[in-house]
Amino acid sequence: MKVKLGSLPYVYPIPITLVGANVDGKPNFETIGDTGLMGINPPLVFVSSHRDHYTNIGILANRTFSINFPTTAMLTRVDYCGTVSGREVDKAALFEVFYGETGSAPMIAECPVNLECRLLEEFSFQHRQVFIGELVQCFASPEYVSEQDGRPRLADLTRLDPILYALDNHYYSVGAILGEGYQEAVKWEGKAP
Amino acid sequence: MKVKLGSLPYVYPIPITLVGANVDGKPNFETIGDTGLMGINPPLVFVSSHRDHYTNIGILANRTFSINFPTTAMLTRVDYCGTVSGREVDKAALFEVFYGETGSAPMIAECPVNLECRLLEEFSFQHRQVFIGELVQCFASPEYVSEQDGRPRLADLTRLDPILYALDNHYYSVGAILGEGYQEAVKWEGKAP
Repeated sequence: MKVKLGSLPYVYPIPITLVGANVDGKPNFETIGDTGLMGINPPLVFVSSHRDHYTNIGILANRTFSINFPTTAMLTRVDYCGTVSGREVDKAALFEVFYGETGSAPMIAECPVNLECRLLEEFSFQHRQVFIGELVQCFASPEYVSEQDGRPRLADLTRLDPILYALDNHYYSVGAILGEGYQEAVKWEGKAP
Repeated sequence: MKVKLGSLPYVYPIPITLVGANVDGKPNFETIGDTGLMGINPPLVFVSSHRDHYTNIGILANRTFSINFPTTAMLTRVDYCGTVSGREVDKAALFEVFYGETGSAPMIAECPVNLECRLLEEFSFQHRQVFIGELVQCFASPEYVSEQDGRPRLADLTRLDPILYALDNHYYSVGAILGEGYQEAVKWEGKAP
């Protein structure tokens, strides 16, 4: 018999990201876990943010934004970015900022991976604003990229070392590699269901 | 100088879930990583699925679905669910199924946490169908729930032991607890930015 915990949207783990947008021409970064992959082809991602958040202004004005993936070594700075508003604090000063092809989505050099996005759709539910973005470019720090069969390959998550989160209000690290997608099934098919 | 990896939506980590829906009155489960949290209040989640997927038929017909979080011990079965279609295989036979308040969103007893959702919105981008759901009820297996200050509290992720995924096509486990949300910032504020 299961226990009922009420209308708690206990999705886990939640990826901790820094979402970037230029607000009034100045880079701002918001710590966001309400983000995710919506599809690989077409390449779609989303960010959901309370409508009062400062970053939203920039996303709507430029119709571009970025999603930056910090490492666990950046945890205190990332947590700090989630406790203060860009209205009061110059968050651009916390990071080395660079721009990509759109010229208006600020990205964080210290993050191993940065997704530059163009706003495709925006919709609201109550006080939530959901931004759906199409990938323009994926940037990676060279120390996390190797070559495999003549193509660039990103390091695995044990090296990218992202920050995870759960609704128990804890941050977590990634553990070990367990297996390969579409390769583990073989071990199951051998057994009776 | 960053390396450009093209329009790769490298969000990480991706939570591996089993999305449930009744199709023609029979439970079906699809392995999905394109899912996430869209907000806590109101409690919103989403699932994105290729329009040809069998599960979509059930989500649209009943306007309910579930998101089930497997443990790493279920990896082979979960990977298997992602390699076959409910059109050919009776996936209900792979799990012990239960229902909640809506009566039409099948859930998996073996998964520590199950989210029962009501479809709020559906929209399409090219061949993608995105389903936004409102949480109806969060179910948890009793062995993962303890009482704290008179309220039920879910075990942390090291015990819930979810399966993570990344676009390098590897599955991963969760590592260690790193800290507490909104508590790590103090350590940063002491330093010059």
